[in-house]
Amino acid sequence: MEIGWIGLGNMGEPMAQNVLKAGHKLTVYNRTQARAEGLRAIGASVAPAPSDAAACGCVVTMLSDDAAVEDVVFSSGKVLPALPQGGIHVSMSTISVALARRLTEAHRQAGQEFVSAPVFGRPEAAAAAKLFVVAAGDRSTLQKLHPLFRAVGQRTFDMGQDPSTANVIKLSGNFLIASVIESLAEVFALTRKHGVNPAQYLDLLTTSLFNSPVYKIYGGLIADAKYEPAGFAMTLGLKDIRLVLAAAEDAAAPMPIASLVRDRLLSGVAQGMATTDWSAVGTLAARSAGLE
Amino acid sequence: MEIGWIGLGNMGEPMAQNVLKAGHKLTVYNRTQARAEGLRAIGASVAPAPSDAAACGCVVTMLSDDAAVEDVVFSSGKVLPALPQGGIHVSMSTISVALARRLTEAHRQAGQEFVSAPVFGRPEAAAAAKLFVVAAGDRSTLQKLHPLFRAVGQRTFDMGQDPSTANVIKLSGNFLIASVIESLAEVFALTRKHGVNPAQYLDLLTTSLFNSPVYKIYGGLIADAKYEPAGFAMTLGLKDIRLVLAAAEDAAAPMPIASLVRDRLLSGVAQGMATTDWSAVGTLAARSAGLE
Amino acid sequence: MEIGWIGLGNMGEPMAQNVLKAGHKLTVYNRTQARAEGLRAIGASVAPAPSDAAACGCVVTMLSDDAAVEDVVFSSGKVLPALPQGGIHVSMSTISVALARRLTEAHRQAGQEFVSAPVFGRPEAAAAAKLFVVAAGDRSTLQKLHPLFRAVGQRTFDMGQDPSTANVIKLSGNFLIASVIESLAEVFALTRKHGVNPAQYLDLLTTSLFNSPVYKIYGGLIADAKYEPAGFAMTLGLKDIRLVLAAAEDAAAPMPIASLVRDRLLSGVAQGMATTDWSAVGTLAARSAGLE
Amino acid sequence: MEIGWIGLGNMGEPMAQNVLKAGHKLTVYNRTQARAEGLRAIGASVAPAPSDAAACGCVVTMLSDDAAVEDVVFSSGKVLPALPQGGIHVSMSTISVALARRLTEAHRQAGQEFVSAPVFGRPEAAAAAKLFVVAAGDRSTLQKLHPLFRAVGQRTFDMGQDPSTANVIKLSGNFLIASVIESLAEVFALTRKHGVNPAQYLDLLTTSLFNSPVYKIYGGLIADAKYEPAGFAMTLGLKDIRLVLAAAEDAAAPMPIASLVRDRLLSGVAQGMATTDWSAVGTLAARSAGLE
Repeated sequence: MEIGWIGLGNMGEPMAQNVLKAGHKLTVYNRTQARAEGLRAIGASVAPAPSDAAACGCVVTMLSDDAAVEDVVFSSGKVLPALPQGGIHVSMSTISVALARRLTEAHRQAGQEFVSAPVFGRPEAAAAAKLFVVAAGDRSTLQKLHPLFRAVGQRTFDMGQDPSTANVIKLSGNFLIASVIESLAEVFALTRKHGVNPAQYLDLLTTSLFNSPVYKIYGGLIADAKYEPAGFAMTLGLKDIRLVLAAAEDAAAPMPIASLVRDRLLSGVAQGMATTDWSAVGTLAARSAGLE
Repeated sequence: MEIGWIGLGNMGEPMAQNVLKAGHKLTVYNRTQARAEGLRAIGASVAPAPSDAAACGCVVTMLSDDAAVEDVVFSSGKVLPALPQGGIHVSMSTISVALARRLTEAHRQAGQEFVSAPVFGRPEAAAAAKLFVVAAGDRSTLQKLHPLFRAVGQRTFDMGQDPSTANVIKLSGNFLIASVIESLAEVFALTRKHGVNPAQYLDLLTTSLFNSPVYKIYGGLIADAKYEPAGFAMTLGLKDIRLVLAAAEDAAAPMPIASLVRDRLLSGVAQGMATTDWSAVGTLAARSAGLE
Repeated sequence: MEIGWIGLGNMGEPMAQNVLKAGHKLTVYNRTQARAEGLRAIGASVAPAPSDAAACGCVVTMLSDDAAVEDVVFSSGKVLPALPQGGIHVSMSTISVALARRLTEAHRQAGQEFVSAPVFGRPEAAAAAKLFVVAAGDRSTLQKLHPLFRAVGQRTFDMGQDPSTANVIKLSGNFLIASVIESLAEVFALTRKHGVNPAQYLDLLTTSLFNSPVYKIYGGLIADAKYEPAGFAMTLGLKDIRLVLAAAEDAAAPMPIASLVRDRLLSGVAQGMATTDWSAVGTLAARSAGLE
Repeated sequence: MEIGWIGLGNMGEPMAQNVLKAGHKLTVYNRTQARAEGLRAIGASVAPAPSDAAACGCVVTMLSDDAAVEDVVFSSGKVLPALPQGGIHVSMSTISVALARRLTEAHRQAGQEFVSAPVFGRPEAAAAAKLFVVAAGDRSTLQKLHPLFRAVGQRTFDMGQDPSTANVIKLSGNFLIASVIESLAEVFALTRKHGVNPAQYLDLLTTSLFNSPVYKIYGGLIADAKYEPAGFAMTLGLKDIRLVLAAAEDAAAPMPIASLVRDRLLSGVAQGMATTDWSAVGTLAARSAGLE
């Protein structure tokens, strides 16, 4: 396939590399052009503007937040007018349900297709092409995109024809991870105050009931209090929880743990941890228990 | 080993069977004697009173709550006076940290050993001898008990010399499970209100990021809204959260998710779900979102 | 003074009447024109469009939410272009801090003044000219507006030169009222379940420690479970809590009770109480305790 | 009346003084006898043991917690056996609902009367005989006690024949005060971060919607961050919230604000504020917002 790719951050860069390795023709754009040079070195074309990437007919956006996507599609980036009739915009970023709906409508009116295909996985999984892709949109369009999804992920879930559904699901997954982090933060504080060794406790948890990567990764970070460099910054976590709460309010579905986690992350940001890994919730729980 | 066994409930009965199958000599006691007959049929002696089981020199208690253990050890059951000097009391029930400390002290004063060895796993795991045993107590005593632990579990974690530590850890594990249930209840309500099919959502979650038994079991119960018969009743869940909050208060460690889950379970009990599986938190979250 | 007045809802209508009674020259606009006729009958001019009210040089907006104010000022209402240079826009609605900042900037760029002057009080207080006015903006402009504020309120608080400050304070006040409602809902459920008569309990509270209007009004509504007709609808309460949480997130200040109240109101909306008085939180707390 | 009085703490001492001034014959006991000397100087007899105070036939207990009351009544204090048949025990302390029930039953079996009559008010109100007395117990016994209640309080509420009801109500009142403190702590943090002057904000709140002593007292403490010396220590607040949560669990009535306040106070204790005034919740909210 011929693919335009906008966004080469921690996730976007390794994903784009895998698309290239899978044999697709890739035209990349990144605001900071230096990051695009690495891709050029392995065969990608570098587009001077987002609209040039969109001209390929199938354009992927992998950006940090709603504002970045809006800017690229509706404002300075001019993706909407540059994408040909019948062209496809694949949004793989974690964006709001509201923006997914707006994009669906805008591309429909322009005679284009919009697909939401956010992914689960941290940068290491992106590098290993082991992401999980949650895709929703027009059935035949999803069919055409499977080679792309296979290039970046280990499995694609087809979640129906309404693109925003994929965004709800992606956000719900990040919420579940945040719940795991908060609950682990609480038990590590509890057990430390009862004299239990964190490493030994981590081993017990992750070799018995909680033998899964999410518990191992975040449990490990909390047990070691190793929150730098951030795999996923606290402000990004706060953004995602804000989006899940917006989706919950939109549907009138109370989510008390999400509310609690939002307050926790907000407290972290207030205490100077904006760029720390979001698992530094472990430090906040420890502090509130009088540790540290 | 020669072992006295007190308590043949949903967990105690299959555990005692496995101890017997492993070749140990077993004397069992159960308040409702009918349940003891099944054990007699496969080779156990049946004790007329708890004190008779204690006379074996190594007695296991596997009872429903603090009150039952206190009654058996200190009051009508007379285990404390009946256990010989140098004898061992192995408490495998989920009891409070405070009671574990009281038992440690009482047995010490009587020249006996007290070991806490609560287990992780539901009745199916007990039947399959696949429990995880969290043990704490005098080192050499724990050594002697390994044949017993091997008979009921797939792995034993030695968590140090203070018996109450094992109870904190067991309670923390039940809290983590409760957190998983609550967080799943919230996302199933959210995604249902956004039109996502629960079975499809469950498949996505449990084959991607949350590919572990806890998520599969409880996610399955919530997706199917199948809360009867109870694997673990809501009142028992509420009891365990109360105990974890007591341990947290004792150590001055705030646990906001535990507080939230306590209120949720209390609401379930108030609404007539005392004997329903504790994962019926799924129904409560759905109700609060206007579903059902 | 010559004043344009936009918005004649439950609050706006009695306030405008009091402005007229105080001897000011009033030109009113309301989307549903029928409501403006009552004002015409007692001496007001009726403007065919918001821009006509703005042409007076001093225009008050008293509308239901951000969207209504944005529409009237920036979009179809054309208040911004119609207000003369040096003119004043007095926003008395409960709007977001973000919108107050946007209005401050837009009017500044147009060579106009913007003042935030939201009010505390229910419709009865508006009718009695007993509101409390929380005003912020340019000092000399506030001076000029005092006759207006005196006409609608019993006291005006001058809170400094940044208009958005007044909005933060107004929102914080509504949050405090919401906290009172939630806390009363909880204690009425508790005491009812312990057999205490609600009317007797209300009398005790409001003649001892909580002898103040907020407790009397909301305590009375909850004790009588009298939530219709709504003095302040649950959706409006939810909107205000959403705005206070946005102001809190903007300043990185966690507000756990606000989060909890948001979930409670959302649950009310999900259960069909959107247009019920927000004190129907009393019913929700009772339900969660198994009452009703 | 002839009255025995046990407990001369911050509250008990001024209350006993007022009873004496009202012309009653008083025999006082206090564990630290020095505090009793002040009472002797103004006419009280000093009892060498609690049982001597109980021998008067009508004995008041005004002690710090359940343990102190249990010790005085059932254990070392021997009030239960010393109180004559037909004698009255008036418990004015803030004790648990469970202990009130136990005392009711124990005194009934001993042919004595038990009355619960906890009070609302801080030490200043006790000194001014301006407490509110919440009384419950046998009707004719309450009648006999009115001279006592009039001597210490400005009003007595007769809440029925079940003594424990008075304790539920007293605890619910302390919960309402704790809710006020927490909500004020949150808004002071919010408004401070938005640049509002705390003293000015306090004035606004307490001269408009929240013109009542509870808001003035606690708002003042938080605005000034003046938490020493403690009027009511954080550990005592935590104890009361624990008791209200126990009463709530007993009745299956979830109280989410109580849960949240419990975690907050626990965090305060963990951070070294055990003996600080419980309104130091203001510091905790400020810290979590990155202030201080």
